[in-house]
Amino acid sequence: EFVARVSGIPTMAKLPYRETAEGLQAAFVGVPIDTGTSNRPGARFGPRQIRVESAMLRAYNSGTRAAPYESVVVADIGDVNVNVYDLKDTCRRIREAYRKIVATGCIPLTMGGDHTIAYPILQAVAEKYGPVGLVHVDAHIGHGTPFRRCVEEGLLDCRRVVQIGLRGSGYSADSYEWSRSQGFRVVQAEECWHKSLTPLMAEVRAQMGDGPVYLSFDIDALDPGFAPGTGTPEIAGLTPIQGVEIIRGCRGLNLVGCDLVEVSPAYDTTGNTALTGANLLFEMLCVLPMVKYY
Amino acid sequence: EFVARVSGIPTMAKLPYRETAEGLQAAFVGVPIDTGTSNRPGARFGPRQIRVESAMLRAYNSGTRAAPYESVVVADIGDVNVNVYDLKDTCRRIREAYRKIVATGCIPLTMGGDHTIAYPILQAVAEKYGPVGLVHVDAHIGHGTPFRRCVEEGLLDCRRVVQIGLRGSGYSADSYEWSRSQGFRVVQAEECWHKSLTPLMAEVRAQMGDGPVYLSFDIDALDPGFAPGTGTPEIAGLTPIQGVEIIRGCRGLNLVGCDLVEVSPAYDTTGNTALTGANLLFEMLCVLPMVKYY
Amino acid sequence: EFVARVSGIPTMAKLPYRETAEGLQAAFVGVPIDTGTSNRPGARFGPRQIRVESAMLRAYNSGTRAAPYESVVVADIGDVNVNVYDLKDTCRRIREAYRKIVATGCIPLTMGGDHTIAYPILQAVAEKYGPVGLVHVDAHIGHGTPFRRCVEEGLLDCRRVVQIGLRGSGYSADSYEWSRSQGFRVVQAEECWHKSLTPLMAEVRAQMGDGPVYLSFDIDALDPGFAPGTGTPEIAGLTPIQGVEIIRGCRGLNLVGCDLVEVSPAYDTTGNTALTGANLLFEMLCVLPMVKYY
Amino acid sequence: EFVARVSGIPTMAKLPYRETAEGLQAAFVGVPIDTGTSNRPGARFGPRQIRVESAMLRAYNSGTRAAPYESVVVADIGDVNVNVYDLKDTCRRIREAYRKIVATGCIPLTMGGDHTIAYPILQAVAEKYGPVGLVHVDAHIGHGTPFRRCVEEGLLDCRRVVQIGLRGSGYSADSYEWSRSQGFRVVQAEECWHKSLTPLMAEVRAQMGDGPVYLSFDIDALDPGFAPGTGTPEIAGLTPIQGVEIIRGCRGLNLVGCDLVEVSPAYDTTGNTALTGANLLFEMLCVLPMVKYY
Amino acid sequence: EFVARVSGIPTMAKLPYRETAEGLQAAFVGVPIDTGTSNRPGARFGPRQIRVESAMLRAYNSGTRAAPYESVVVADIGDVNVNVYDLKDTCRRIREAYRKIVATGCIPLTMGGDHTIAYPILQAVAEKYGPVGLVHVDAHIGHGTPFRRCVEEGLLDCRRVVQIGLRGSGYSADSYEWSRSQGFRVVQAEECWHKSLTPLMAEVRAQMGDGPVYLSFDIDALDPGFAPGTGTPEIAGLTPIQGVEIIRGCRGLNLVGCDLVEVSPAYDTTGNTALTGANLLFEMLCVLPMVKYY
Amino acid sequence: EFVARVSGIPTMAKLPYRETAEGLQAAFVGVPIDTGTSNRPGARFGPRQIRVESAMLRAYNSGTRAAPYESVVVADIGDVNVNVYDLKDTCRRIREAYRKIVATGCIPLTMGGDHTIAYPILQAVAEKYGPVGLVHVDAHIGHGTPFRRCVEEGLLDCRRVVQIGLRGSGYSADSYEWSRSQGFRVVQAEECWHKSLTPLMAEVRAQMGDGPVYLSFDIDALDPGFAPGTGTPEIAGLTPIQGVEIIRGCRGLNLVGCDLVEVSPAYDTTGNTALTGANLLFEMLCVLPMVKYY
Ligand SMILES: [Mn+2]
Ligand SMILES: [Mn+2]
Ligand SMILES: [Mn+2]
Ligand SMILES: [Mn+2]
Ligand SMILES: [Mn+2]
Ligand SMILES: [Mn+2]
Ligand SMILES: [Mn+2]
Ligand SMILES: [Mn+2]
Ligand SMILES: [Mn+2]
Ligand SMILES: [Mn+2]
Ligand SMILES: [Mn+2]
Ligand SMILES: [Mn+2]
Repeated sequence: EFVARVSGIPTMAKLPYRETAEGLQAAFVGVPIDTGTSNRPGARFGPRQIRVESAMLRAYNSGTRAAPYESVVVADIGDVNVNVYDLKDTCRRIREAYRKIVATGCIPLTMGGDHTIAYPILQAVAEKYGPVGLVHVDAHIGHGTPFRRCVEEGLLDCRRVVQIGLRGSGYSADSYEWSRSQGFRVVQAEECWHKSLTPLMAEVRAQMGDGPVYLSFDIDALDPGFAPGTGTPEIAGLTPIQGVEIIRGCRGLNLVGCDLVEVSPAYDTTGNTALTGANLLFEMLCVLPMVKYY
Repeated sequence: EFVARVSGIPTMAKLPYRETAEGLQAAFVGVPIDTGTSNRPGARFGPRQIRVESAMLRAYNSGTRAAPYESVVVADIGDVNVNVYDLKDTCRRIREAYRKIVATGCIPLTMGGDHTIAYPILQAVAEKYGPVGLVHVDAHIGHGTPFRRCVEEGLLDCRRVVQIGLRGSGYSADSYEWSRSQGFRVVQAEECWHKSLTPLMAEVRAQMGDGPVYLSFDIDALDPGFAPGTGTPEIAGLTPIQGVEIIRGCRGLNLVGCDLVEVSPAYDTTGNTALTGANLLFEMLCVLPMVKYY
Repeated sequence: EFVARVSGIPTMAKLPYRETAEGLQAAFVGVPIDTGTSNRPGARFGPRQIRVESAMLRAYNSGTRAAPYESVVVADIGDVNVNVYDLKDTCRRIREAYRKIVATGCIPLTMGGDHTIAYPILQAVAEKYGPVGLVHVDAHIGHGTPFRRCVEEGLLDCRRVVQIGLRGSGYSADSYEWSRSQGFRVVQAEECWHKSLTPLMAEVRAQMGDGPVYLSFDIDALDPGFAPGTGTPEIAGLTPIQGVEIIRGCRGLNLVGCDLVEVSPAYDTTGNTALTGANLLFEMLCVLPMVKYY
Repeated sequence: EFVARVSGIPTMAKLPYRETAEGLQAAFVGVPIDTGTSNRPGARFGPRQIRVESAMLRAYNSGTRAAPYESVVVADIGDVNVNVYDLKDTCRRIREAYRKIVATGCIPLTMGGDHTIAYPILQAVAEKYGPVGLVHVDAHIGHGTPFRRCVEEGLLDCRRVVQIGLRGSGYSADSYEWSRSQGFRVVQAEECWHKSLTPLMAEVRAQMGDGPVYLSFDIDALDPGFAPGTGTPEIAGLTPIQGVEIIRGCRGLNLVGCDLVEVSPAYDTTGNTALTGANLLFEMLCVLPMVKYY
Repeated sequence: EFVARVSGIPTMAKLPYRETAEGLQAAFVGVPIDTGTSNRPGARFGPRQIRVESAMLRAYNSGTRAAPYESVVVADIGDVNVNVYDLKDTCRRIREAYRKIVATGCIPLTMGGDHTIAYPILQAVAEKYGPVGLVHVDAHIGHGTPFRRCVEEGLLDCRRVVQIGLRGSGYSADSYEWSRSQGFRVVQAEECWHKSLTPLMAEVRAQMGDGPVYLSFDIDALDPGFAPGTGTPEIAGLTPIQGVEIIRGCRGLNLVGCDLVEVSPAYDTTGNTALTGANLLFEMLCVLPMVKYY
Repeated sequence: EFVARVSGIPTMAKLPYRETAEGLQAAFVGVPIDTGTSNRPGARFGPRQIRVESAMLRAYNSGTRAAPYESVVVADIGDVNVNVYDLKDTCRRIREAYRKIVATGCIPLTMGGDHTIAYPILQAVAEKYGPVGLVHVDAHIGHGTPFRRCVEEGLLDCRRVVQIGLRGSGYSADSYEWSRSQGFRVVQAEECWHKSLTPLMAEVRAQMGDGPVYLSFDIDALDPGFAPGTGTPEIAGLTPIQGVEIIRGCRGLNLVGCDLVEVSPAYDTTGNTALTGANLLFEMLCVLPMVKYY
């Protein structure tokens, strides 16, 4: 039976709620923390608000002709139960929850939460798949620094890491050298201005090859005119169109996990940030390896 | 295990979600419509937002010493699946849904939606219990006029009807006579100013006696300083304290159903209206006949 | 024909628009300035927003049983055409516009604008009626100081002046002495806390007697919890209930003009301030001398 | 005399208000309904808010050198008096109102209201002019589906229909085939990304030829970063620059009517959506056939 | 020279900024943390926003006739430099900063920050003055639980502790027993409804006697209709009038420190919460022992 | 010592506060007026809000590799003390304050305030340097008209004036001729659409040569989708990317002063306008002649 858009408890995209990832090929999962935030907190409410705004998502992607629900067994499996007073304990809880999710090959589509969560998620993912390639979309190279720890623990295949959208002010010139010295490809926002990112993504696909890839998308990569609801906004960023191009450009990659982080609803006065987050997560679902297109 | 306040899909008061009312003594249920609204629409999103704000509700009522979850089997059973384009069909859907809810004695605690929904709900309730007493809390005597139709269909026991909080401007003096001519007790907001409503509620309890009673609470009964998020706000209304006094004053009544209607989130710029709605629904749960107090 | 509440260009209370006050017994008129504001500007948009929110006003006052449109010929005559760059010229324009309004006995019901406008209005009013009594409702004794100039020009009958709602911090103790030394009755907000103002208004009516009276109501007299949209909010103020009691308490006075000033929509995030302003203006209309009650 | 921008009852662009279209070459008219909305309601307040924001419009278009008031007799003729409880009756009222407007050749510039209103408007327009060409700017191919009914009734010249800006998720692939199968030109938003739409509009003008053309502009065609205040926002949309290019690209067409729909002020937290709506309506006025340019 | 209200870098009440408390009798100081928050974070921005809103405070308290700047040497000494990633280290920083402030007898007037900060502040205060009496104004008995730890460390004189404003839901009945079992006086919000708190404060003064007293005021003690901008709002709370009565009722006590905590600007959509916080801090200054009254 | 981003009284970019410009090479200074505004007032609070949002600025410009604090002695010297009731007196105060600032060669980086302030600033600047070149970025050619007076007084070197971003509606075609007739280069927004402005700025540098140049940037030059918080927004404007390109394109010029005006916080519902203003001011600092790049 058709369910009215306005009816029902807000799961992601109005999908069924499941207690565990068992039997799923992909799962939307929330990680509601913001204890890693240096400036504006509030990303703990990101998963809840993304679910609320996702009520508008329908089944067919008119831009790419993907109909993901026809080819992927996917559900909303709720949130990791975090400990708001203890980041270390929270990281342990996330890692363990994701171990269970990835154990049977289910691909987690994570709703953050601040960017810190990528570290325990990648611990679980790399334990399953070995060091992964990383498509990291962000205004910031360093804040939260989950990826520095990932490198230290060997979770990333450093030749297969790209960072897109970096800009704004930073603490020093040095902090921008670290990424390059690891072998990462660094694409400043300035290199993206006034352009389609479709050509860039062809290069990224070549860089990533056939190995497992993780996509980590910080909503602050987008310009705050489009996504004001985030903890550390930086002007002159990517457009939502470019954000969609990046994700659609991941089609064909061996994606083993994706996240969309840093949506902070209290600052999202237009509601547009959570709406954008919900749409980008839907686009991520649409480029998973098993999705068939019309 | 303790679940963090910020974790989890937003059901009412973080209660378990159930597909049906079977086995429940009370059930929170949403009716997301606003097609009966003459002025500002938007109450269709009331249930969703009340659920979101209800995350702050804990188990013990410090004001009354009620601990409802220890004595009532209660869950969130989701929303009636409405038809946003056809009010008549929606009323039929509501009536049928409530027939099933009340069939086994489960008490519905409804999250509206505009006040129109009280009519099909009362059809189902009166079918089960016969004509009911009504505690109707509202700024308006007439708008949406669900109760006029209830009277016409004999759903109300007219000597056991009280209307509290009426005020503001109306179309004519006549419209205020109708209520009195039915035998309703009418309590203008002016009679409530600067006072506790605890004495009034003692009188209301006497008026209601032992028969079945339905409590219908339009959030616009409250002053828009406290509850701006509603379709037809009227100044100089009740305080939330008085709202709580009215509900707590219903303790001891044979309540067979309750609703909290007209929360319109797009106008609730402070979030206070949905928060108040969630708290008033919790207070309603706390005065159901089977609740035990410490 | 019944006109839908949502239809039509927003005149005050959906009244007909008239170019002049000719033939009217009362007239709503806007004075959109804020050049006299020391803190937050924006009251220039007060008239526009009060008109927008007034769409909800109906014909019958359920609290007092007044039906003003059955006994008063009233219309919206638009705004005084102000000069936003020159306060002196604006005052001249206001004075001349009000001379024409009061010439034939029409009672102006003014939508401000900042409180400065009371000075040129009272010049025109006193020219017509001689020195007037004044009911001045305000958090502030001094800001904008239109009334000091009114005293200097002999526009007020100083034994018939009352100031209600004063509170907050001021520049010095001296500034509070001036009012008393003119013979004004000064009622601090503290004297109003936790009480009905109906008894106070009986005293005010005795003080005012039969002479002409002007009512000047600064919306900041109300607590900013109810009326946040104003230029200089002060906490711990009057409630809207008390505001309504003050106006209803003016019934029986020889009112020759009323204003409602300092609504500043950009700060009115709930919309409640303009809504309250619209309602208070309707209550003012309902206590004009020629209004009959049911 | 120069009237201050802040003074006056808010008619569209501060134009004179007229009761009827008689003697006018063009008329701004509001249709305040939203009963056809499946998701967020509120477009009923679009006309009111567009009028409020239009106060900033001046007489001369600096981008195109049009000075429309020197060559077009135009006024604001208020709103169609709708029936908020009965969509069918409302459609009848709209159709009849527009029959009168178009009878003498006056061109209606409509402020919506949800997109449903295009159906009864086109009934009146096609009755006068025969089947018309259509420039339909929208994120959505289907919602509200007024145009499907227009096709069924033969109101459109299907070879002269273009749809621009479609994107996002839909119910199924099929729904996108219908448009093409009617012979419509369909321009997905993806085809518009990163480009001027001036070349597209040259092709559209060729497609439209000399026959009568109706322009229907749903504000949700624009990206919600620029126009958040609408019922069904879709990310990655057109820019306001592209919106202006589309309208300016209609210069030279035989326009017989235009609308700007789906502005929903309660969601327009920045005020930018109504402001954009007002400007786009001004641009529509500037491309009417009789306008002369400097 | 008179400095315009709008000019100047926002220190508290436009007071001079000083690097240290040396030579001061009282000092406004900010503690910008929120890491102790279980629900909505954001109180870290409380000090900044209180300072911004405090620009409206003038020198003379018209309600009490206090002119504090004539009798107290007071300045704004900025914020404690916190460590947003480490609550333990932050507590150490607070404790050390307050040791220096209280060393020479300067009275700290603290702008929070979440309520956790009261614990290290009281460590420093009790080190200087011995166990102190406590006037604790709050909706919550437990959250953040700084006072439980204060009791454990012997920082409080338990017979001289009063808690005012408690209400809402809690985890269990037990949590409310602990306070009473320590000998605290507990005043539920219900006991405050519909009343002046001036009589209560006479009792509190008797309870406190001549010993040192600390005043800790959680803004959530106030009703969220007046103070929506806080992390854990509870309906049916105190009014700002009652808040002012509590503080004015502390006149005559041997106050050795005061705080105003839990202002969370991102949720303060009306701005009223920070404004209220600024005013309550000014009232605290006005009741310090050395203040002279007109 | 590292100071937490959230700690400290909000000076611009967390720089030290200084009473005067003495010893500084550059100084941030606020001019909090809006008395020259014809439409929405509120820019008087621009400096305060820009300072608040500037807390996020760090020391190193990742886009240009500038590290300005390593090569420029710069501080925040507070606001000019304006007279909100007298624009003429305010202009005199501004002129005198700027004479002192520029006397020793310090470069003022001004936070407005409405655009009127450019006139007295340029009086002081031209008195020091002789007629200056002007890079004027704005949606409006005329409003506030400070530059017409500057031309009349010979403060500008008219062959070295460029105006970028003009658009929208104006009073008449004539008003656009004046600029060109003075010899100014006029770049309509339409000429900027869909393009990088880096090539334009190469031309502007050629036009400006080696003489002294003043940069005056009205935030309304940017599209209101990015900068809604301003007094007279015009759709279809520049992007923040283009704004940054304009400022970075001024590198190499002999800049003697810069301003960023018309940020009106009450309309800045997303906070993005003040954030953008703060970032653009930082970019201005980064292109001052003495800045060294990595
Ligand atoms: Mn990140
Ligand atoms: Mn980031
Ligand atoms: Mn109702
Ligand atoms: Mn109602
Ligand atoms: Mn006043
Ligand atoms: Mn006042
Ligand atoms: Mn449409
Ligand atoms: Mn659409
Ligand atoms: Mn607390
Ligand atoms: Mn608390
Ligand atoms: Mn300008
Ligand atoms: Mn401008």
